[in-house]
Formats: sequence, structure tokens, C-alpha cells
Amino acid sequence: MKKVYILLADGFEIMETFAPHDILTRCGLDVKTVSISSDKNVKSAHGVAVTSDLFIENSDLSDGELLILPGGYPGYENLGNSKEVGKVLIDYYNKGKWVGAICGAPTVLYKNNIAADKKITCHSGVKDKIGNYNYIGGATVIDGNLITGDGAGHSLDFGFLLASALVDDDTIDKVKKSIEIK
Amino acid sequence: MKKVYILLADGFEIMETFAPHDILTRCGLDVKTVSISSDKNVKSAHGVAVTSDLFIENSDLSDGELLILPGGYPGYENLGNSKEVGKVLIDYYNKGKWVGAICGAPTVLYKNNIAADKKITCHSGVKDKIGNYNYIGGATVIDGNLITGDGAGHSLDFGFLLASALVDDDTIDKVKKSIEIK
Repeated sequence: MKKVYILLADGFEIMETFAPHDILTRCGLDVKTVSISSDKNVKSAHGVAVTSDLFIENSDLSDGELLILPGGYPGYENLGNSKEVGKVLIDYYNKGKWVGAICGAPTVLYKNNIAADKKITCHSGVKDKIGNYNYIGGATVIDGNLITGDGAGHSLDFGFLLASALVDDDTIDKVKKSIEIK
Repeated sequence: MKKVYILLADGFEIMETFAPHDILTRCGLDVKTVSISSDKNVKSAHGVAVTSDLFIENSDLSDGELLILPGGYPGYENLGNSKEVGKVLIDYYNKGKWVGAICGAPTVLYKNNIAADKKITCHSGVKDKIGNYNYIGGATVIDGNLITGDGAGHSLDFGFLLASALVDDDTIDKVKKSIEIK
């Protein structure tokens, strides 16, 4: 079963995290949430307390095929300030594995000096925090091994674009029907 | 600040729960999750562990303006089998307060013998579990004080329809912009 890791920092955006989690799990993938602190209990930007599956510090995430960075404030800043996150992110990106980042999280790419050659989208509020990156806007963008999304309102689209990287169209069609998207 | 309660049973659908939670919180409402068991830790249908804000047993939910019942399996069955849930639901419905139910959760209305006169939608998989209720289908339906949704893929629409019952259009427009729905 293909593995997916979602990084959870305090202040994460809950739709951006759990729409992809839900869709990818329904697609048959093994999806695990990973706290970037030493506490498994992580709070969303709006105070929802979630217990993550793993800690980043003592987990080997190298068996995953996709790493997801949700947005949310100050979640994306916490991701950007973490050396552990940078290490895992750079490893995934440089090995050509899939990386997904939505909303404020594309700024974490910039902070770690990767993907400057890729077309991206991000939240309009952080466009000035991504240096000279090739921002093209829109709900979702795929370029090479990088998938980006602009915000929580497009969490489902982001989730399905991530899924399209790992499973076939029939699987995605079945999942869409199961959640009543005809 | 207007209060909203979301009932959480083991096996709840995470998008159907937290898309409305996120939208209504962004709209300035005071949204609380309520575990229907004696354990504050509740697991989603796909194994995500969430710590609820309250327990149903020792909480007075009578100050709320909206009660939300998410779907998810076996979450909606657990809601339907709970006498405590029935008591709160019947109280809200009969007092003309807002009630929201999505996916499998409209079956909980039927189980408690309320809202048989209302037009509803629900997940296509539970249409045979709502007796002679006036099922009209579609993504979301509003009829009187009852708002129903068909499934996780329309969690955002469901959330915004719930929001429209409690806040003005300007507030909703601002929230839509904040999550990049133009």
C-alpha cells in the first residue's frame, strides 16, 4: 500500500489537511498525520485538537510517495521554521517524490530553496512571500513532482489532484461517486 | 456570539464535520464539538482521533442556534442509536431552531420521528432508510428550519448553506474570499 504523510503543525488549516486525507484514504492509500513537534496533540488554526499518528522526530518518513504540507495560520509559518520539516521536504523533492503544498505552505518551498523552477499557485495573501517563484495562480497547479493549491475552498480539488498522481482514474471516479460528486 | 454544536460519534465523516466547523467559525460563530459518548476522544470513519470540546451527557446545549449531525459510517448509526442525541435533536427541531444533517445523518431524523413533512436530501446509499420522507435529492436542501446535504463532496456547500441561516451575505462573501472561492 502506497504511503502518504501529512505534516501537522499547530495552526494547521483543517479542511486543507483532512479533505486530502479523506480522499487519499478512500483511494486506498495509507495516509498518516505527522506532528512536527514533540507533542502528538496538535491544534488547528481554529482550535480543533487532533492526535497525530506519528512524530517527525522519531519517525522514518522515507518510505512515503507523497508529502503534504497544509496551510493555515500560523501552521505554515511553523512548518517553514522547522529544520526537521525542511530536511524531509528537501529529501522528497530532490528524489522526485510527490510534494503537495496549499495556501500558505508553498512559502515553505521558498524558505528551503527548492522548486524555484516550478509553476505554482498559493494563497493570494502570501504571494509576496515566495520571492521570484513562478506564481501562475488558479485553484491548483501541477508541475513535475510538485502540486500546489490556493486555499481551503479548493481543498477537495487539491486532494483529487494529489490522488491523480498515485492512483488510476477508475479509483478516483469511484471515490467521487462515494462522496456524491457525480 | 451565536452558538453552534456539532455532534461527534465514533465513525464520523471528517469533511462533513470540519468543513461546516471551519466555515461557521470563520463567520464569527462559536462552534463546539460534542462527543456523544463518555470519552472526549472520538475517531473519524477513517481513524483520525479528535478531542471534542464537550460531552453530551454533562453539557447544556440549549443555548445553541444550530445543531449539526455529520454523516460517516458508522457515525450516523451511532447518532441514531443514542437516546441523548434524540433528546437534543427533538428539542432543537420542535423549538424551530436550525438543524443540519448530511449524508447518512438524515436517517437520524427518521429514527426520532421528526421532520417527516420536510423536503430533504441525503446520501443515495441511505435513501431506503428514511421511510416515506420527502426525499428530493440534490447537493443541499433547505426547508423551514432543516438543512440537509447529500455527502462529503458537498461539505462546503452544506457549510455555507448552514452559515446563510445565521449570518449575513457580506460575512459569507468575506469568508469565501478568505478561502479563495472568488
